[in-house]
Amino acid sequence: MLAMIALLAAPPYSPEVAARLVGFALTDGVAYARVAELADGIGPRLSGSPGAEAAVRWAVQRFREDGAEVRSEPVKVPHWVRGEERAEILPGRGRAGHSLAITALGGSPGTPTGGVTAEVVEVRSLAEVRALGDKARGKIVFFNHNMSTPGGKTGYGEASPLRNHGPAEAAKIGAAGALVRSLATASLRDPHTGATTFEDGAPKLPAAAVSVEDAELLHRLLQQGPVQVRIGLGCRSLPDVDSANVVADVRGREKPDEIVLLGAHLDSWDLAQGAIDDAAGVGIIMEAARLIAHLPQRPRRTVRVVLFMNEENGLAGGKTYARVHTSEAERHVAALESDAGAGRPISVGLRAGAGAQALLAPWLVPLEQLGAGEFGGEAGGADTGPLGALGVPFVGVQQDVSRYFDYHHSAADTLDKVRPAELAQTAAAVTWVAYALAEMPEPLPRSQAAATHAAGATSTRPQ
Amino acid sequence: MLAMIALLAAPPYSPEVAARLVGFALTDGVAYARVAELADGIGPRLSGSPGAEAAVRWAVQRFREDGAEVRSEPVKVPHWVRGEERAEILPGRGRAGHSLAITALGGSPGTPTGGVTAEVVEVRSLAEVRALGDKARGKIVFFNHNMSTPGGKTGYGEASPLRNHGPAEAAKIGAAGALVRSLATASLRDPHTGATTFEDGAPKLPAAAVSVEDAELLHRLLQQGPVQVRIGLGCRSLPDVDSANVVADVRGREKPDEIVLLGAHLDSWDLAQGAIDDAAGVGIIMEAARLIAHLPQRPRRTVRVVLFMNEENGLAGGKTYARVHTSEAERHVAALESDAGAGRPISVGLRAGAGAQALLAPWLVPLEQLGAGEFGGEAGGADTGPLGALGVPFVGVQQDVSRYFDYHHSAADTLDKVRPAELAQTAAAVTWVAYALAEMPEPLPRSQAAATHAAGATSTRPQ
Repeated sequence: MLAMIALLAAPPYSPEVAARLVGFALTDGVAYARVAELADGIGPRLSGSPGAEAAVRWAVQRFREDGAEVRSEPVKVPHWVRGEERAEILPGRGRAGHSLAITALGGSPGTPTGGVTAEVVEVRSLAEVRALGDKARGKIVFFNHNMSTPGGKTGYGEASPLRNHGPAEAAKIGAAGALVRSLATASLRDPHTGATTFEDGAPKLPAAAVSVEDAELLHRLLQQGPVQVRIGLGCRSLPDVDSANVVADVRGREKPDEIVLLGAHLDSWDLAQGAIDDAAGVGIIMEAARLIAHLPQRPRRTVRVVLFMNEENGLAGGKTYARVHTSEAERHVAALESDAGAGRPISVGLRAGAGAQALLAPWLVPLEQLGAGEFGGEAGGADTGPLGALGVPFVGVQQDVSRYFDYHHSAADTLDKVRPAELAQTAAAVTWVAYALAEMPEPLPRSQAAATHAAGATSTRPQ
Repeated sequence: MLAMIALLAAPPYSPEVAARLVGFALTDGVAYARVAELADGIGPRLSGSPGAEAAVRWAVQRFREDGAEVRSEPVKVPHWVRGEERAEILPGRGRAGHSLAITALGGSPGTPTGGVTAEVVEVRSLAEVRALGDKARGKIVFFNHNMSTPGGKTGYGEASPLRNHGPAEAAKIGAAGALVRSLATASLRDPHTGATTFEDGAPKLPAAAVSVEDAELLHRLLQQGPVQVRIGLGCRSLPDVDSANVVADVRGREKPDEIVLLGAHLDSWDLAQGAIDDAAGVGIIMEAARLIAHLPQRPRRTVRVVLFMNEENGLAGGKTYARVHTSEAERHVAALESDAGAGRPISVGLRAGAGAQALLAPWLVPLEQLGAGEFGGEAGGADTGPLGALGVPFVGVQQDVSRYFDYHHSAADTLDKVRPAELAQTAAAVTWVAYALAEMPEPLPRSQAAATHAAGATSTRPQ
């Protein structure tokens, strides 16, 4: 609607530039080619792995070829490795045993030789596990939820605290292990991994994701009587290693010190190629920088692409970038994070100060034909979160994520899940939004709420 | 239409019996409970495994409780065991390696220690592999197809010969191994197993199914250049073991020597619970026999349930039944095989002599409200195939199989895929069709074509 009204006035931007950027993004196939290079050429890229380091080298080289000013900025990252993993329900009275499809959660310690064998107790919330008290001692706590249940309304945001914090809560009350129902919207017996967090010095326990099917099996059998499970995990944490964020600048023509930051993450989980999470985001924002760098005339401000390391299991890259660049926080005029897969664009999210929407609206007209010309949804992200706390306005190109959690963090996050046409549409939208943010005469107003929050956050946030 | 016309005449059957059978099947939940006993209680049931033997004991006990005359009939079955399995694409020029999601095909030999490492050659048909000739020597032949490709029109019937016979063809021309794209209509990187056949004395090779995603990866990489793969399979064939078909008769009141045979198979693949393949079929036909046995008055003919062993990897149960009962072939007046999952009923298939449809049509009226009152689709099956060759008329309750090959022969064939309401509807339809076939005054006419075929088949079929 705002965009419709905007059509009546002369556009504040060059239609030629809009057509050129969108046109190249929709026809050159470079974003998809980059995703394929990461997925098929490099493969899994968990922090500390050879794949992660190969991705850093690859990104530096590609940015050089693209004409950006590129550097790698050191980041110390966790080095967790998976090892063998298996679990089984032991035979019960008049019932056979069953193997379970599991995969260790990132950050989990391994089990002792011979595994952990214990009775299972089922909970459906963090409150329920805390309420178990002594009943959890020596047990395997099974975190169930209904994210993947037909008709179930639980989303990733509601279910993910069970994976992130449930095992630590269970460890505090003496549990011997934890199984978390996969955070998935589809399942063919494939478990979905993800990070789980234990605070320094707090008790830990072996924790694994269990496939949706096996979660339902556990639930059925627990209704019939006690269930014993054996879990064997070979995962372990090695010493932290030196890695890097890759930072590439396309310097602005008038205000090169003002930065529009585009973020995505180079690392991935180890179970698959990390094609949608987040080779897609990397391909999208590299394409934005490349096309903007090749314009006859650069936009006013600098477009900076940051390919973060260690988004998946520690956020070391995001935290390090914010710490190292704290003094530049005021010069970051906007941040856009691309970490929602390869789906088509559907809207533009905005988190900024009063009047931001009216200022940005006329610039979104070129996105109407891409189906993404309206405001809607959120903006933000895990890697750029610390920047938000520093008051940086967020803009987000919202994507179709209806299939995203079918594949997310599972062995099925492979290149075939990326539809080139949809990826190109989102690359076009992100390219144009990045250009608009860098070319608008005035930057977006900073959010007072964010600034207030940032003041509190900078004083208490552990860094 | 035929059923509509039939409505105008007095029905040839007792509406009270129809309402009773359908009503119980739709309300008592016994079919689903039996499927759950097999799936959750016993689990995988590959021929020769403890699960398969537990299923035989379980079936005998349940039939006794149901009031049927039950016996187990000896069958010698193959005893193939899976063992460890893994495969990987080796790193290439400027490209990382990739692990492959594979699972050995039933009947495959294992690899030597250290596995088989060879270059991959891709084919899409048996004709293409035969045409390779010497180019296949020492290679791993990769059988690709488009069954799982969006818009691909290949079905299981067209693609399954690649799995059944492709590895043997590749072995004949000196290949070192075979990978077959999974026969699947959906995939989350989960390979689908199934039998592959090597003739006695002919060359063999290690053969595995590869997930759809990994088949597409292989295809992409092969377009860029040579690809080397290493396959390690621990599977092997142990000596044949003694097992059994379970045969249960509900004797007819007038013509007990005339037999309406209902078939399903007790065995399953080893990757999962075999819930849709074929615990569902077992639950359906056991329910039919149970409800007919409990009628105040039995139907004219005997309803015989045969729970076959070894449908999945050898058909020893079906072949043995046909051989042992050859002299009774004329007394088998109809056969119905239930091996198409747990979906709702949609029509009735018929393969019999001229006039059969007109004879059966008036009896199908009670199925109209179940959505299955019309003729359509095929009738037959793998276990009862030899009976067809002996001229036995086939009737089949066709089911919704739109999701069947999402799960078939994979680790995802688990109880949660069975929707109790749909299973109950098919159990109701099968129960009524079985009753109708056993109660009709005249049996269905035998097919001349089938009889002719049988005459040829009995003289040449190896038994």
